[in-house]
Amino acid sequence: MAANNGLHVTAAMDDEESHSNGGKIQPVSSTPGHQNWVLDIDKKQQVPPTLGDLLGVHELFSLDVWRASIGELVGTAVLVFMLDTIVISTIEADIKIPNLVLSVLAAIIITILLLAVHPVSGGHINPIISFSAALVGLISLSRALIYIIAQSLGGVLGALALKAVVSSKIEQGFSLGGCTLTVVAPGPNGPITIGLETAQALWLEIFCSFIFLFASIWMAYDHRQAKELGHILIFSIVGTVLGLLVFVSTSVTTQKGYAGAGMNPARCIGPAIVRGGHLWDGHWVFWVGPAVACVAFYLYTKIIPRQHHKSKGYEHDFSKVVKVMFGGKSM
Amino acid sequence: MAANNGLHVTAAMDDEESHSNGGKIQPVSSTPGHQNWVLDIDKKQQVPPTLGDLLGVHELFSLDVWRASIGELVGTAVLVFMLDTIVISTIEADIKIPNLVLSVLAAIIITILLLAVHPVSGGHINPIISFSAALVGLISLSRALIYIIAQSLGGVLGALALKAVVSSKIEQGFSLGGCTLTVVAPGPNGPITIGLETAQALWLEIFCSFIFLFASIWMAYDHRQAKELGHILIFSIVGTVLGLLVFVSTSVTTQKGYAGAGMNPARCIGPAIVRGGHLWDGHWVFWVGPAVACVAFYLYTKIIPRQHHKSKGYEHDFSKVVKVMFGGKSM
Amino acid sequence: MAANNGLHVTAAMDDEESHSNGGKIQPVSSTPGHQNWVLDIDKKQQVPPTLGDLLGVHELFSLDVWRASIGELVGTAVLVFMLDTIVISTIEADIKIPNLVLSVLAAIIITILLLAVHPVSGGHINPIISFSAALVGLISLSRALIYIIAQSLGGVLGALALKAVVSSKIEQGFSLGGCTLTVVAPGPNGPITIGLETAQALWLEIFCSFIFLFASIWMAYDHRQAKELGHILIFSIVGTVLGLLVFVSTSVTTQKGYAGAGMNPARCIGPAIVRGGHLWDGHWVFWVGPAVACVAFYLYTKIIPRQHHKSKGYEHDFSKVVKVMFGGKSM
Amino acid sequence: MAANNGLHVTAAMDDEESHSNGGKIQPVSSTPGHQNWVLDIDKKQQVPPTLGDLLGVHELFSLDVWRASIGELVGTAVLVFMLDTIVISTIEADIKIPNLVLSVLAAIIITILLLAVHPVSGGHINPIISFSAALVGLISLSRALIYIIAQSLGGVLGALALKAVVSSKIEQGFSLGGCTLTVVAPGPNGPITIGLETAQALWLEIFCSFIFLFASIWMAYDHRQAKELGHILIFSIVGTVLGLLVFVSTSVTTQKGYAGAGMNPARCIGPAIVRGGHLWDGHWVFWVGPAVACVAFYLYTKIIPRQHHKSKGYEHDFSKVVKVMFGGKSM
Repeated sequence: MAANNGLHVTAAMDDEESHSNGGKIQPVSSTPGHQNWVLDIDKKQQVPPTLGDLLGVHELFSLDVWRASIGELVGTAVLVFMLDTIVISTIEADIKIPNLVLSVLAAIIITILLLAVHPVSGGHINPIISFSAALVGLISLSRALIYIIAQSLGGVLGALALKAVVSSKIEQGFSLGGCTLTVVAPGPNGPITIGLETAQALWLEIFCSFIFLFASIWMAYDHRQAKELGHILIFSIVGTVLGLLVFVSTSVTTQKGYAGAGMNPARCIGPAIVRGGHLWDGHWVFWVGPAVACVAFYLYTKIIPRQHHKSKGYEHDFSKVVKVMFGGKSM
Repeated sequence: MAANNGLHVTAAMDDEESHSNGGKIQPVSSTPGHQNWVLDIDKKQQVPPTLGDLLGVHELFSLDVWRASIGELVGTAVLVFMLDTIVISTIEADIKIPNLVLSVLAAIIITILLLAVHPVSGGHINPIISFSAALVGLISLSRALIYIIAQSLGGVLGALALKAVVSSKIEQGFSLGGCTLTVVAPGPNGPITIGLETAQALWLEIFCSFIFLFASIWMAYDHRQAKELGHILIFSIVGTVLGLLVFVSTSVTTQKGYAGAGMNPARCIGPAIVRGGHLWDGHWVFWVGPAVACVAFYLYTKIIPRQHHKSKGYEHDFSKVVKVMFGGKSM
Repeated sequence: MAANNGLHVTAAMDDEESHSNGGKIQPVSSTPGHQNWVLDIDKKQQVPPTLGDLLGVHELFSLDVWRASIGELVGTAVLVFMLDTIVISTIEADIKIPNLVLSVLAAIIITILLLAVHPVSGGHINPIISFSAALVGLISLSRALIYIIAQSLGGVLGALALKAVVSSKIEQGFSLGGCTLTVVAPGPNGPITIGLETAQALWLEIFCSFIFLFASIWMAYDHRQAKELGHILIFSIVGTVLGLLVFVSTSVTTQKGYAGAGMNPARCIGPAIVRGGHLWDGHWVFWVGPAVACVAFYLYTKIIPRQHHKSKGYEHDFSKVVKVMFGGKSM
Repeated sequence: MAANNGLHVTAAMDDEESHSNGGKIQPVSSTPGHQNWVLDIDKKQQVPPTLGDLLGVHELFSLDVWRASIGELVGTAVLVFMLDTIVISTIEADIKIPNLVLSVLAAIIITILLLAVHPVSGGHINPIISFSAALVGLISLSRALIYIIAQSLGGVLGALALKAVVSSKIEQGFSLGGCTLTVVAPGPNGPITIGLETAQALWLEIFCSFIFLFASIWMAYDHRQAKELGHILIFSIVGTVLGLLVFVSTSVTTQKGYAGAGMNPARCIGPAIVRGGHLWDGHWVFWVGPAVACVAFYLYTKIIPRQHHKSKGYEHDFSKVVKVMFGGKSM
């Protein structure tokens, strides 16, 4: 069932776009005679979903999910290529306040890419969105896994594309636009390492990822908000929040060598694999930070009043998964 | 009754979202047989509300109110973290007119955070809004109290988060982005205190808070305005007015050491508790000023012609509370 | 009749807000049996209105009109406070083109304040609007008089508020943001007076006020335009036109000491009363100029083809007042 | 018939505003008994219109047309005053890129003035619009003539108003904001004339006027476009296109002394009459250029597929006039 409900994340945004609800809701593909029966008695309340249903294991073998993941792969590749060329361009262009300009450009390109990938796979192009959507229950953990793998591969492709078009000097100077905590710079007594402390960077990664989820992604997950705002405005808000966080995280620390909060592990692993070296130093921060933020955000959605996120579309809620795993009954 | 009508503030904005009007409007939770009776004879006109009803004491024990306050807590924490990092970023980034840029960024982030918290708790994230909403009668004083406590805690969390990611040098230099009247600066004859006089700061706090209420929040409280403008436009206006006031209050005084009007006590108490020291000097100004402004605004709404704010939704009007307390009859 | 039709100015904008049309249109307040009769035979054609009716003398004793004027008073006070702090802020902030930036900020704040005061009193906060609305006949001269007094008092309050928060040095340097034709500046041979000639300033005042009326206020007065554009767009146009005129009038003369066209006598009289001195030099220009513009605008509306402003809602048309005064019959 | 169908240009935009279609559509003014007959058999197909009908000679004696032309006169006066003060302001304000800023401001003010004059006379305030509307057949040549005279007078009034408020130094320096091909500047060997060659200026005038008609005015003439876009959007497009052309024509030539394409003969003749002198040099270019463009545009509308402009409302089509003049039958 629900072969491609990875689209739920954004399909929640407009009712008329609910083209992806599997056989049960699309009457054309269901057995004619059973139509009324399905509507009268809710199947799920009769047969409790198995752990496999909740994890969406069947989606691992669904061609549609893998096809949709191509959208994520290409989208993330384009995102990495564009973001990194924007970073290099604004700094090379000798603008007075490069990180303000690059934040605005990043906000624009993220908004556009989300709009572009949205009809294909739901418009994630960021493991944070995929993972938090799986926790909240909008997509299955299986689908999230496939998407995150696709996004990471996309990050590598984007970094390879970047490497192909820039000179080695720029590649060196900007670490391929990768996520760095520290860089090695020439000092008076030989090369020294400058940058941010790992603890500080981890906190920043957690805070920024949480703010990203809390202040923008949440609007897409809450069905009523999503419907009222419309997905174009929401994607603009997502882009704006990310742009603001890029600006803030790069300038608030005033530490050279720290490239700002990653807020997208796929964006960080691409250059790290392609270029390696010091890009692997503290690379775990860009995965653990967002993961912690996703869990914190999930807890937040569980604490606030129920009715705000309790409607159909959250079939894969992580608390159900846990309950079933430990013998409890899915609500 | 009306367990979670804290949402009234913004629920007033769109009719179809009236999901929070207590037992009377939500048929599912009211006793079935009494449904028609409630509609025919207005209960309130029959049984005058007690003081406890008007103050909403029962809300102190409502899980939903406390859950909604989590939205306020996290929202205020994010607000404080973002506003302060924006302040530090724009000044560190060596922009020519930092307070104009930071006003624009503040306007954007406030608008977005109001949109994010709106469906959870009504979207206050500012004790001024909670207190004035209670005076006008949109929410009960009990709920306002809970929200203000949550907002203050959020302010502390935001300040702690900020402290975790910035170097101690920046923490020192910017007083954690706190609300200061004066700073101690090195002078030719030992350190001297520079800043604004307390009286001047208090007036500025009162005026700015009142303008904030008069020129933006009022549009959300007047049902007809709220409905016509829609809450996205209103939240943008709130953000724009606050941004303008930040710009004006920081530059009109041309006094170094004064960080501009607070216009949000929760934003001010966070850094004060976390960092202490001179942040406590004149800290009362940032609470008394807004409180005076809220009372002045309440009087204004009482003087202007009735029909503009006289419709359902103002059950907790402060004048009713006073009347009941002193033996008068609630109108 | 029509005790509070000061709202007509903008009530013309949306049909559903016609809450202020006196006894004839609101059936609840008219005598039940005469309902049909009133609709069949137009009362006004039977009993010609007296001079008192046309001037709206009864409104002088209407509590609702005086209450509505509180909205004008507070609105104008906020307007004066904000406009003047914006002027001081932009100039102090050392922006390269301060008068362009302040024009944009002025446009924004005027739009927002009009929106805020609109449901209370109709949204004038400017004697030019009140006077021209009375000439065209949308409100009575009595109401216009009350509003203009309230606006002038508001201007004084705004100037007092400004005086309370700025240092005496800034108060001196900016003449409290008042309307000046000339300032006394130190010259090589003792202080000299620099500024604009009175005739030039008067012409500029007349032209700018007329353009303000012709290019923005007219859209609110023409019922069809008002309905089609909606009052949010109209208020934005009003703000934009005023912003443009501020920009143009300050820079086209290139005369230091001249603060630009006033285009709002209430804004000018506030600082003049509070601070006095050279602010009274040529102060009459800021009253006579707009008054001449209002009359010119009224003549314009009389010359252009009839059907564009001939519909219900212009009961207090000045030409009727004149006709009745000199024994003619009101049309 | 059709005494005031000068409104057709924009009356075509909204259906409910068709208040100006002569006797046939307004039942009140047609002979009662013939009402049905008129609807059954189209009168025009029976009695071919005379040359006088097509030229609209009767409109020369229509009070309404002359009254409407007051709107054109005042509108053009305001346009000339505002455009020229904007030009002077932006250059005097020492902005880095004055012609970009002035283009944006010009676009805004043109849009607003078109909206203001639209309900009075149709919103031309530019002889190019009046002449092309007459060629296409939306208004009669008689009305176009009256409008163009009014616009020219308005241009003179605007220039006089400008002269009254600026110092003689600025009046000299900016040629009253007039349309110049060349200026006389002090050179090393006595004063020399710098500027654009006449042929180049004529071509630029033709191209810009044609682009203006093709890219913006056409949307108002095509009934379906006009209805779909709405006149607010169309007027914004007209303003934007003119702003862009001002920017392009001033900077593409990079010739000091050339003030950019006129694209509005009324705007050019005003300062020329008031100030005279070198403003008359090559002044014919600003009339001949637009006239050629109007004819080219008319030919374009004849060549493109019929259905785009073939519906009621084009009664004064110039090809009919020619046909009748030379004995042919009006189609």
